Order: sequence, then structure tokens, then C-alpha cells
Amino acid sequence: MEKKYVVGVDLGGTKIYTALVNLDGQIIEEITIKTEAEKGEKVVLDNILKTIDKVLENVDRKEVKAIGIGSPGPLDIEKGLIVYTPNLPFKNFELVKPIKERYNIPTYLDNDANVATLSEFMFGAGKGSKNMVYVTVSTGVGGGAILNGNIYRGSTANALEIGHITVMKGGPRCGCGNTGCVEALASGTAIMKRAKEALDSKVETSLRNYDNVTAKEVFIEAERGDKVSKEILNDALSYLGIGIANIANSFDPDKIIIGGGVSEAGKIVFDKIDEEMQRRCLTTIYNHCKVEKALLGGKAGVLGAAALAILESK
Amino acid sequence: MEKKYVVGVDLGGTKIYTALVNLDGQIIEEITIKTEAEKGEKVVLDNILKTIDKVLENVDRKEVKAIGIGSPGPLDIEKGLIVYTPNLPFKNFELVKPIKERYNIPTYLDNDANVATLSEFMFGAGKGSKNMVYVTVSTGVGGGAILNGNIYRGSTANALEIGHITVMKGGPRCGCGNTGCVEALASGTAIMKRAKEALDSKVETSLRNYDNVTAKEVFIEAERGDKVSKEILNDALSYLGIGIANIANSFDPDKIIIGGGVSEAGKIVFDKIDEEMQRRCLTTIYNHCKVEKALLGGKAGVLGAAALAILESK
Repeated sequence: MEKKYVVGVDLGGTKIYTALVNLDGQIIEEITIKTEAEKGEKVVLDNILKTIDKVLENVDRKEVKAIGIGSPGPLDIEKGLIVYTPNLPFKNFELVKPIKERYNIPTYLDNDANVATLSEFMFGAGKGSKNMVYVTVSTGVGGGAILNGNIYRGSTANALEIGHITVMKGGPRCGCGNTGCVEALASGTAIMKRAKEALDSKVETSLRNYDNVTAKEVFIEAERGDKVSKEILNDALSYLGIGIANIANSFDPDKIIIGGGVSEAGKIVFDKIDEEMQRRCLTTIYNHCKVEKALLGGKAGVLGAAALAILESK
Repeated sequence: MEKKYVVGVDLGGTKIYTALVNLDGQIIEEITIKTEAEKGEKVVLDNILKTIDKVLENVDRKEVKAIGIGSPGPLDIEKGLIVYTPNLPFKNFELVKPIKERYNIPTYLDNDANVATLSEFMFGAGKGSKNMVYVTVSTGVGGGAILNGNIYRGSTANALEIGHITVMKGGPRCGCGNTGCVEALASGTAIMKRAKEALDSKVETSLRNYDNVTAKEVFIEAERGDKVSKEILNDALSYLGIGIANIANSFDPDKIIIGGGVSEAGKIVFDKIDEEMQRRCLTTIYNHCKVEKALLGGKAGVLGAAALAILESK
């Protein structure tokens, strides 16, 4: 029977989002339920199976090519398990085998960064590229790469630690323990910290009009002309741009796709990245490499899991 | 007839170094002659053919699997030509076709950075790795990468522009026009410039005992305890280490191989790289990734061209 579909499972800390997807990336059926991570691995697995059962209700299982799962990690992709999760109570949680056996359908697992990268590559802003880097900038900074049409994982499955590239020797301390990482200078968290430092000082800023200041308020007030907010963003986005220029000079990709909350701020972010890339990239690389906003937003996880299923079952 | 050999041609600005090499990377016959680049492309091609004739004298051509050529670039690898060379009078110099036709042996061309990378991967310090980055530090800083066992070229054949990764915003001007590149802070040329700046100042340093100071004298005097020389190297090698740590966090390789004149200084270079990597790399990446000195020195070009011939004719 012709294989027309794949199933994508986006396993998150709070929600499981599962969809039946056709080979063009269109969602045919979808369901979102609570993960109930606090109830332990058995309940979570049962919940995943429930969602897959549900999206398969109206199709012949023989039409399903593969199942893909995107999960927080670190993972052991070969063994198909979640080694552990910093914020969830999983340890050596075997996922692939029970799913594969229940449905008798090939099943693949990868981490959320790789899966989001794949989703933009196959169905989003990266479509048609051969070499593509995905960078997500939200509370942290992370990413993934497609090189010559395949996920590039590196030797310990940790490639594309973009957030921990050093762009300022002796810069602010990063959560990872090091100083001057992109994440410590340009993430949403970093922007918020710079804003709090400003509020703790004597400087005049319209950020004082808020009870609680996050990166979002800094973008709003910069847009309204607040000098301090503009300074904070100018600095942060300049370091983000340096990190991205370094990635471009290293990977020489067709496209760099930027996702995550900070990318939602739009023009100010992309203008600054472009300025730093133009200054810092080899001209040939700069002229070729397009920087674009990620297209898939909240569907990146589930469509990426579907993309993983398509790519790995080829 | 069993294919036992390949030919490697290292085309340089002053010399052509050609060898008959067996599939284990052992040189069977070799010859070096002058390039005579100033006499133009026809003479250079004739010279290359002469060297190939010579190394093939005592073998049956049917035993030769392929011919590889390493050349300065930029090249058009598909068309088999040298597009131009900044320091040599070549323009759209067609190399592959006449060689292939004369010997009726498959012939491949690649640039010197990729070829040196391949040589260490197949016959040198990178043997046995799957993902490997090669960094050369001499007057400039350059490199190449083997990912999943193949040369990674990027989308415009400019990947691994390691020398032009920004490691100091607002740092010294680089030859490329940008500021704060690894090359502007850590190349042999950069070390020499920092030494000249010291000599132009009032600082006390034993570097004043030389008529002409290059990076070499800075290494010698640092070893002898000169404070200024030690400071210069500490700074330069620290920025080199940051660049290499950034490459490690990006590519997550099995090995990073360091070649070029600066690497010859040995322990002081590798200790500083290790210090920065330990500080700046993800722990898993740091624990896995070995940093080693290139092994092939002056034979990297010719053996790399041979390695190219072996790899591409597979």
C-alpha cells in the first residue's frame, strides 16, 4: 500500500503535540494533551501512545511510513531513549522500542533543536537549501545544522552549541559557567539582565514604568525611543550578529534561519545581524548566505518530528 | 589490473612537488621542479606533465587509480580549473582536462587547505577520526574540515574561514578589512605586529637585541623569560584558543589538528589552546575532542593530493 503519511510527536515538558502529516508537511489530524511528566515515565509513554492512536484513527496504518519523535535531551538516538532531562523526571526512558513494536512502524527519535532545524529545512524557511543553520534565540540560544541535506550532529551529538560560542573575552558569566558566551550577551535572559542592571543604576529610562521588565519590554521601549533600551539592544544584537557571522564563516551555508522569541521582534534584530555579517563575513559568504525568519513557530516541533520520520525512513 | 597507486601533485607558487603514492600513503617515487609561474600557464602545465611522466616511468599506468592536484585558489572544482590566484599569473587555468586526457586516468583538483586537511585525515594525525577540523597557523590562519568522512566545502566552497572568525569586537584591523579576526590577533603576522608595537614603545624587552623581529624571536624570548614576549604570546594564543574553542563548540569534532609555523612552537601553544578549550567548550565536547599537532609538514600538500585522488575515485 502506498505510504502517504508520517506521524510527528512533539514531546514537551508540559504538552504532547502529535499530528498525522502528509509527505508535503500538511497536518491531517492533530491532538495536544498534557504530558503529566510528574506522574513518571510509564504514564508519559501511555499518553504518547494515546495521541498516536488518536491521529491514526481514520487511516490505514499500512499507509504510515514512519513515526518521528522530538524530545528534550540528552538522548541516545541509537538506543532510542532519553538519557535524562534537566527539568523533567526522565532517566534512560526507553521511547522508540515500545512505540515501534506497538504499531509495527519504523520509529525515530531526535532532540528538539535538531527537529526544529529539520522542520524549517523541509517545510519552512530553509526549503530548497543544501546547507542550512538554524539558530533559536529565546531564553537561551541554541541551534542545529543541515549539511549536504542531512542533520549534522557532530561526534558527541552536541554540534552547533551556538549559544556557547565566546564573543567577548572576559564578558558576563553564562549559565554554563564560562564568560562571554553568545547566550550570556544576546539571549532574552541576557537582555532582561542588562535591563535590571540599568534599573538598579541611576540612569533615566522609561523601563521604570513597568513592574516587571523582560526582554519584551526592552524591545517595546526601544521602539518608543528610550535611549537605554536602544543601547541594551544595540549591544546584545551586535553580539548576536557576531556569533551568527562566525557561524557563517565556519559553515558557509545557503541560509541561516532565526527562530525563537527574540526573532519575533523583527526588523531591528535582522538589521543588526545583517550589519555585523556584512562587516565580518567573507564577501562571497555574505553575498550568498540568506538570513531569514523561521516560519513554523509553535508547529516547528511536531512538523520537525514528521520531517525526521520522512528523512530517516528514506 | 589491480589499482595500487595514485599520483599526488602539489602545485605551489615556486615549486611543483609530485609523487607516486601507494594506497597506504607511502611515497614510491617523487620529484620536485620549479613551477616557472612567471612563464605562464602553458609552461606550468608542461612542467606538471613532466613531473607526472617522471613518477610514472617505472609503473604500468593501468595500476594508477587516479591523479590528485592541490592548488592555490579560488578554484572551480567542477570544471577543474584555477579561477585566479592572488599571487600568481593564472586566470581560468584549465588543469584537470588536459591531464586526464593525456593519461586517461581520473583526475581531481582541490585547494591547498582542503588537501592539507585530507592528508592529515588519511595519513597523519587525524587518522581514524570521523569528524576532524584542520587549522593552520602561520602568516595567516586557515583551515578545512572533514565531516562524516568527507571534505566539507560549504555552499560557496569557503567553509572553515577560521582566520576570520571575530574573537574581539573592536580588535585590531585584519588584512580582510574587518577588525578582531583570529588572524589579526593570533597569526604569525599578528604576533610580529604586537612585537613591533612593543619595540616602538618605551617598554623594556630583550626583543631589542634583534635587528629584525618576527614571531619566531618572540617565541624564543618568551621561552628565555622576557616578560613582554610572554605577554604578547599569552594574549595571541589566548585568542587562538578562543577561536578553536568556538570551532569545537560549532563542529563537535573528534579531533582538531593544528599545523603551520606557529604550531611548531609546541607546548606553549597547545597548553594555551587546552586552557581556553577547557574553559569555553561544552564539557562533553572538551572531553571527547583531541587537539593534536599536524604530522606531515612539507609533505602535507603532495600526500593530500594523493588522498584526494584516493577519496574521490572511490
